[in-house]
Amino acid sequence: MRIDIITVVPDLLKSPFEASIMKRSIEKGLVDVQLHNLRDYTTDNYKQVDDYQFGGGAGMVMMVEPIDKCISKLKAERTYDEVIYMTPDGDTLNQGIANQLSLKGNIIILCGHYKGVDQRVREHFITKEISIGDYVLSGGELGALILCDSIIRLIPGVLGNETSALTDSFQDDLLAPPIYTRPADYKGWKVPEVLTSGNFPKIEAWREEQAYQRTKERRPDLLDD
Amino acid sequence: MRIDIITVVPDLLKSPFEASIMKRSIEKGLVDVQLHNLRDYTTDNYKQVDDYQFGGGAGMVMMVEPIDKCISKLKAERTYDEVIYMTPDGDTLNQGIANQLSLKGNIIILCGHYKGVDQRVREHFITKEISIGDYVLSGGELGALILCDSIIRLIPGVLGNETSALTDSFQDDLLAPPIYTRPADYKGWKVPEVLTSGNFPKIEAWREEQAYQRTKERRPDLLDD
Repeated sequence: MRIDIITVVPDLLKSPFEASIMKRSIEKGLVDVQLHNLRDYTTDNYKQVDDYQFGGGAGMVMMVEPIDKCISKLKAERTYDEVIYMTPDGDTLNQGIANQLSLKGNIIILCGHYKGVDQRVREHFITKEISIGDYVLSGGELGALILCDSIIRLIPGVLGNETSALTDSFQDDLLAPPIYTRPADYKGWKVPEVLTSGNFPKIEAWREEQAYQRTKERRPDLLDD
Repeated sequence: MRIDIITVVPDLLKSPFEASIMKRSIEKGLVDVQLHNLRDYTTDNYKQVDDYQFGGGAGMVMMVEPIDKCISKLKAERTYDEVIYMTPDGDTLNQGIANQLSLKGNIIILCGHYKGVDQRVREHFITKEISIGDYVLSGGELGALILCDSIIRLIPGVLGNETSALTDSFQDDLLAPPIYTRPADYKGWKVPEVLTSGNFPKIEAWREEQAYQRTKERRPDLLDD
C-alpha cells in the first residue's frame, strides 16, 4: 500500500511516522508513506498556497492551482484508488471505513489547513471526504495521521500478533472488556478472581458479559445496529 | 493552561508540538505542554511498563505502578482539574467537550498503548475517559494530539483572528459553507457570482443557506438537536 500525503506543514507529520507501529510498518515495506510539501508546487516567489476568501470573512483559503499541480503529478505516476480530503464535514471515520481503506492499493490524502480548500478542489479532484469526528482542528494533518494509523495497523503483518486487532473495540460492535495485569493485588485493589482461576471457558464467558455490559452502559447505540 | 501528557512513546508526540498552532501557542506562553515518559517511573532494570493479561489473550497491558507513580508525583506538585484517559470506549469528543476543557487550568492526559491500561488505573486515577471516534488506533498518543489541538486552538489569543474559530463547523451546529479564493476562473471552473458581487447582505444570506443545505445533506443529525 502507498499513501501520499499533501500538506503545507510536512514537519508536523514527521515524528509519528518515525515512531511506533507506523515506523515499523514502513521499515518492513508493508506501506510506503510519502509526504509532499504543497509549497513545492507553487510558481511564485512567495510560495503562496493560500489567499483571502471571495466575499470576505476570517481565515485563508487554500488555492486550487498548487493542489491541482501536485495531484496531477502524482496521478501521472500511478493510479490512485482514492483522493481523500480531511474535513470536518466529511463522512465520519469508523472502523468499517478503516477496514475498507486498508484493502486499497494507492491513496492520496489532502490535508486542509487554514479555513480549508477552495470548493473547486473538492468538486474536481476529491473522491472521498473524511472527518475523524465532530470537532474542529487547526488543520487536516492530525486527521491524516489518525486515518493512516487506523488503516496501517489493519494491514496484515503490521501488528505482531494478528489476533490482536480482531479483539479490539468496534470490530464486533462491542467495546472491549476490562483488562488486568500483574500484580494481582496492588495497594489492596484486586484483580477479579475469575481471571486468575485458570478456568478458560469461564474467563471467556466473563469477558463476553463484561464487554456486553460495558457497551450497554456506555454505547447502547452500538448494540442497536 | 498546563497539559501533562503521560506516554510510553514520547518521540511520537514531538513534531506536532514543534510545528503550527500548537508550537506558537506554547511559545506565546498561552499553554504549557509537558511530556512524561512512563519508563522514567519504573523501578526495574528493564524499565518494564507492560505485562501479559490475566486470564490470557493477545496484547500487553500497561501496569498500574508506573502510572500511579507518575500521576502521584504530578498531583503532589499542583492541583489538576481532570485526569483524562484516551480510550475508544470513552465519551466521544465533540466541540462541546473541547470548549469545556479549554476553560480548565491543569489537566493530565494518559495515553493508553498496547492493549490498554490495567482497569484499576481507570477506577482509581482517571476522572474522564475520552474517545476521539469509533475506530481503533495503535495508541492513545494520536488521540492526545487531537484532544490538545482541539482545546488549544480555542484558548483566547491562540488563533490570529479570534472570529475565525467561531465561524468553524460545529460551533453553531451547522457545517461551514463552501469557500473560494482566487482565481475567480480556474480552467473554466468559476466562483459563484454572488461572492464577487460586493453585496454583503446577499453574500451572508447565501452562506447561511449553503451551510444549512450542506448540513441537511451531510449531517441531518446536527439539525435535530
